[in-house]
Amino acid sequence: VAKRLEKFKTTIFTQMSMLAIKHGAINLGQGFPNFDGPDFVKEAAIQAINAGKNQYARGFGVPELNSAIAERFLKDSGLQVDPDKEVTVTSGCTEAIAATILGLINPGDEVILFAPFYDSYEATLSMAGANVKAITLRAPDFAVPLEELKAAVSKNTKAIMINTPHNPTGKMFTRGELEFIATLCKENDVLLFSDEVYDKLAFEADHISMASIPGMYERTVTMNSLGKTFSLTGWKIGWAIAPPHLTWGLRQAHSFLTFATCTPMQAAAAAALRAPDSYYEELRRDYSTKKAILLEGLEAVGFIVYPSSGTYFIMVDHTPFGFDNDIEFCEYLIREVGVVGIPPSVFYLNPEEGKNLVRFTFCKDEDTLRGAVERMKTKL
Amino acid sequence: VAKRLEKFKTTIFTQMSMLAIKHGAINLGQGFPNFDGPDFVKEAAIQAINAGKNQYARGFGVPELNSAIAERFLKDSGLQVDPDKEVTVTSGCTEAIAATILGLINPGDEVILFAPFYDSYEATLSMAGANVKAITLRAPDFAVPLEELKAAVSKNTKAIMINTPHNPTGKMFTRGELEFIATLCKENDVLLFSDEVYDKLAFEADHISMASIPGMYERTVTMNSLGKTFSLTGWKIGWAIAPPHLTWGLRQAHSFLTFATCTPMQAAAAAALRAPDSYYEELRRDYSTKKAILLEGLEAVGFIVYPSSGTYFIMVDHTPFGFDNDIEFCEYLIREVGVVGIPPSVFYLNPEEGKNLVRFTFCKDEDTLRGAVERMKTKL
Ligand SMILES: CSCCC(=O)C(=O)O
Ligand SMILES: CSCCC(=O)C(=O)O
Repeated sequence: VAKRLEKFKTTIFTQMSMLAIKHGAINLGQGFPNFDGPDFVKEAAIQAINAGKNQYARGFGVPELNSAIAERFLKDSGLQVDPDKEVTVTSGCTEAIAATILGLINPGDEVILFAPFYDSYEATLSMAGANVKAITLRAPDFAVPLEELKAAVSKNTKAIMINTPHNPTGKMFTRGELEFIATLCKENDVLLFSDEVYDKLAFEADHISMASIPGMYERTVTMNSLGKTFSLTGWKIGWAIAPPHLTWGLRQAHSFLTFATCTPMQAAAAAALRAPDSYYEELRRDYSTKKAILLEGLEAVGFIVYPSSGTYFIMVDHTPFGFDNDIEFCEYLIREVGVVGIPPSVFYLNPEEGKNLVRFTFCKDEDTLRGAVERMKTKL
Repeated sequence: VAKRLEKFKTTIFTQMSMLAIKHGAINLGQGFPNFDGPDFVKEAAIQAINAGKNQYARGFGVPELNSAIAERFLKDSGLQVDPDKEVTVTSGCTEAIAATILGLINPGDEVILFAPFYDSYEATLSMAGANVKAITLRAPDFAVPLEELKAAVSKNTKAIMINTPHNPTGKMFTRGELEFIATLCKENDVLLFSDEVYDKLAFEADHISMASIPGMYERTVTMNSLGKTFSLTGWKIGWAIAPPHLTWGLRQAHSFLTFATCTPMQAAAAAALRAPDSYYEELRRDYSTKKAILLEGLEAVGFIVYPSSGTYFIMVDHTPFGFDNDIEFCEYLIREVGVVGIPPSVFYLNPEEGKNLVRFTFCKDEDTLRGAVERMKTKL
């Protein structure tokens, strides 16, 4: 393995999903629904396949999807973007992240992350040869430590990367925090990479796109995907929205990482994004019910439960159960209890910071959630 | 744009396909069929979507596809591989190339390519910080200059990358050439990356997998894809087969480039790979007819036509028409003749070497091929 990837292990999501299958455990680990996506989107994919939309797509996206993404972005954030010059379709948001980082970050550039972070951020930054600084968001509220962040920005800082709503904590960046970060970016000529794949899973607050903060669009790459919002995580349709000069860089990387994304699924994604607002309202209603079930259940089991305002994840502290760290706790949970959670220590530069925590997802049907809670109540 | 990508332009495939649409030209440029893939594969995709196979796949491939790839490889090359430990499904062969290079090549490693080469090889090697050496395959037969190759291998050489059948020349590496390269690899402890996406489009000779040369499997990454063989270039299903220690490196890169590949299309790909041999025979028969039409046509038009034994490309020399270089010739061809070809100078480290050449594809229906020939006969 090349040095740039030496320190990384098999992703925790793969490890945990494979263990779930092996032990027949209930999987509240990796964030994929155990129910299907909407029929109208599946129908659109089938129509595209039957209509012969099966050859290479335009590298940066089929025109109807780029347009649908631009329309959705206008609705959501009030920003008008050129679908051909500022929208790039990628093979999932993971590829958008890789293309953005490999396309825009040079060896030695400093990039600031907020820990805990989705593991691909650190790995792709390592692939780009970047120096990573991490600012830790701490329980119970995972607020941005503003002064610490300010002190971390230096003349070598090339970009700050945020994720709101935030995986794995469920935190949503407040307008105040976004404005503070925006000011830092503008004053220090820093780029902003914003992963917003959970934007439609905002429960206790409204999602705010960093790009909509005045003066930020021109220095921001906004990333999103179809998977979470349409319960089709396996289709791997993502995108990046950015002004033309940033789009150029990330498109170059995209061209040589995957060249183009699955054509018929792009056609279906365009149909999905044109869903009426009622689709999103219903999604949020459904997930609110699921969230309440898991939240109440985790409290009843005896975890210290931290508030989650967005995403389909809940972060808890397992200290009451007396395990040394999150890995040991999660192993016991799989083997003896039959439930899978994600040990978050891998999402920190310093794993110690995550050792009391566990992440659970509620993107499962209600019976599954209740079943998992029941197992934990009985066996923990 | 990051320095690693500074020297690259919009890929020639995107440029040419967009010009084709703009000028209403017949597109014999980028290699995608203008006919559809087989119904039984499309049906399998539709069934998978309807069966709810729509969530994240196992990162390195859905088990049935990994198995189908291993079975196919056994049939084709006589090698038995472990589907779970030696096969990795990627989002097209382009991603397999990127994952192999970013996962196994360190900055400063020397990698030897054969020019002309598919443009992503050089770009991803640049992303990995490799030093690229190119050995030129020269018309008319594009044979490997054995002594030149031998002299190019040094103690810094980490890998040699081949592509057989070869895009854009149609050359197939002979057993003698493969054995010569194999000996160099073994004597100098060099890895071998083999892109074999056109293996089923072998007309004048049998395809030989480098991995099947004795002693080579353990140092070879064999890459392939669904697109060319099943006329479904837009589905973006590729894979890499390699011994576990090499698979580990490329899987790590894959995990963070795309994480996983479109689930329902993987299910369909598994069905495709289990096609009876008659499918492949018919494919070859169809393409032989198309090839004859284009070959005869290009000769009648007045090109110097080079022999192509595999792929769906034919390389010609445009010198008889009096243009300065391939770019100028191709621009004239689009604007004044209404036909798109690919100017190959971008596939050389030294563009001069490709300036007399043009590549045409015959992966189009017979009327389209005849129409293109007619236009060239009339207007060139
Ligand atoms: C490849 S897993 C992507 C993110 C996610 O679903 C998770 O954090 O569980
Ligand atoms: C992304 S284009 C892939 C290769 C090909 O089809 C071509 O060389 O035309």
